[in-house]
Amino acid sequence: MLLQVIFIIALAAEAMTAALAAGRRSMDWFGVCLLACVTALGGGTTRDVLLGHYPLSWVHDPYLLVLTCAAALFTIAFARLVDRLRMAFLLLDALGLVVFTIVGCDIAMAMGQSPIIVIVAGMITGVVGGVLRDVLCNDVPLLFSSELYATVSIATGAVYLLGLQLGLTAELVIAIAFAVGFPLRVAAIIFKIQMPRFVYKDLH
Amino acid sequence: MLLQVIFIIALAAEAMTAALAAGRRSMDWFGVCLLACVTALGGGTTRDVLLGHYPLSWVHDPYLLVLTCAAALFTIAFARLVDRLRMAFLLLDALGLVVFTIVGCDIAMAMGQSPIIVIVAGMITGVVGGVLRDVLCNDVPLLFSSELYATVSIATGAVYLLGLQLGLTAELVIAIAFAVGFPLRVAAIIFKIQMPRFVYKDLH
Amino acid sequence: MLLQVIFIIALAAEAMTAALAAGRRSMDWFGVCLLACVTALGGGTTRDVLLGHYPLSWVHDPYLLVLTCAAALFTIAFARLVDRLRMAFLLLDALGLVVFTIVGCDIAMAMGQSPIIVIVAGMITGVVGGVLRDVLCNDVPLLFSSELYATVSIATGAVYLLGLQLGLTAELVIAIAFAVGFPLRVAAIIFKIQMPRFVYKDLH
Repeated sequence: MLLQVIFIIALAAEAMTAALAAGRRSMDWFGVCLLACVTALGGGTTRDVLLGHYPLSWVHDPYLLVLTCAAALFTIAFARLVDRLRMAFLLLDALGLVVFTIVGCDIAMAMGQSPIIVIVAGMITGVVGGVLRDVLCNDVPLLFSSELYATVSIATGAVYLLGLQLGLTAELVIAIAFAVGFPLRVAAIIFKIQMPRFVYKDLH
Repeated sequence: MLLQVIFIIALAAEAMTAALAAGRRSMDWFGVCLLACVTALGGGTTRDVLLGHYPLSWVHDPYLLVLTCAAALFTIAFARLVDRLRMAFLLLDALGLVVFTIVGCDIAMAMGQSPIIVIVAGMITGVVGGVLRDVLCNDVPLLFSSELYATVSIATGAVYLLGLQLGLTAELVIAIAFAVGFPLRVAAIIFKIQMPRFVYKDLH
Repeated sequence: MLLQVIFIIALAAEAMTAALAAGRRSMDWFGVCLLACVTALGGGTTRDVLLGHYPLSWVHDPYLLVLTCAAALFTIAFARLVDRLRMAFLLLDALGLVVFTIVGCDIAMAMGQSPIIVIVAGMITGVVGGVLRDVLCNDVPLLFSSELYATVSIATGAVYLLGLQLGLTAELVIAIAFAVGFPLRVAAIIFKIQMPRFVYKDLH
């Protein structure tokens, strides 16, 4: 199914951008693979651990680990190419954000979670991988101060959940979720749309 | 019940001080809410994941997420006020440390854990939220080098457990736990009581 | 059994080196104990949480916490001695890497996991404690850029799994795993054998 194909492509794309980040920090090949796995699979893993949803996806399907490491090693070999295709990767990342969100919502719904938790589960699936990558690279997570990202995930999850509760077919609702989330994220990148910031200086 | 009320107030207070910390780092509104949730709910979440105690409290009661985010957004609007009330928040934080510890001990006891694990579960509930906040803000956790905090939690948990095992009523034991933990933490802040440090310089 | 004895010694050794790292950052005594526990028990804890293997080892056997804290406090008292024995600790750490890997593989096999996951479980048990220590100390994890470490764990796990699948006795397979992993790690330290690095500079 198309969703599954996009999921696999997005997973590989996330692994490849993480591998470039590892290269900027001169990590060794093992570190590159580990950072790629954590970035690509960390969101789903965090969601499953928080919901108590076992086995984890990559424990059930270890080929996901193989795929992620293969994408990381490919990036080592063809780093210039991956970097030149930066725009394509941003688009793939936007697709990935939507598909990860949908997958996360589906799993929470299958467990019978409440609407808020369904949307939160979608968002965790979409954004936590990048947070873990930044923590391991010893950066303040980008998520906290960059273009709309988590917000896109929340909007996508809300639209998806609403569509299903209105009784629309799954195919239609997925199409609507992509039609909302993907252009929103791309617009956020192009026009540098950010959440307002909370800038605070101490009184003292 | 009074304990529940203090728990809710302490949760909001933790979220508000975390929101100020986010503001000092110029995070966006989403980052502020996320940091507030991680700080306020991260201790209980870590305890539940480590003990295998599902569903997590905020998955079972999603209103806790709403409360935490509301407290964070309130802080954005009234940051000066929150900062001016710093002393009040320190007192609320001290109350929170005691109530989080008691809640953590209760959950571990209900699972039939051994006394050491009950005390550890109380301490994790009380202190891990702040550690996660510091890691996400890219700081060395304050916990490792500041005034008595985890020690207060351990003392509170030990007194609580001992009181229950002596057969005292729950109300009395809770009162004793507050009478031990709260003044101890407040005294630690006022008199800057710290654990001794282990300062080591390499031989080479 | 010998494996159990080596496991306990290695746990204490990991706790002691972590305590020295805490001392270099002037942490207080509680921080020293916490960092020692996270380093010594964090790998097994991460493995169990990811596999859904409850109760965690230290929840089931709280004496492991006592042992780790005792080793940390011993280090505070005898820091010079521990630092002078640095070479001995590197050897103990190499023994620990092998024994942690074997224990991790055993647990995954007992759960009926697939071969890839068995090897990954062994590696997580062996290396994640050190990653958590570095994240809490606000460093980029050493693992990502130092001498062969995770690779040794993966090789050890692969040999161990292969030996068992060939029908060799457990004792023999354990002996072979030590004969492969221990000298490999020691050689990596002595000859500074590293994984090749992926060094990448942006185009822009």
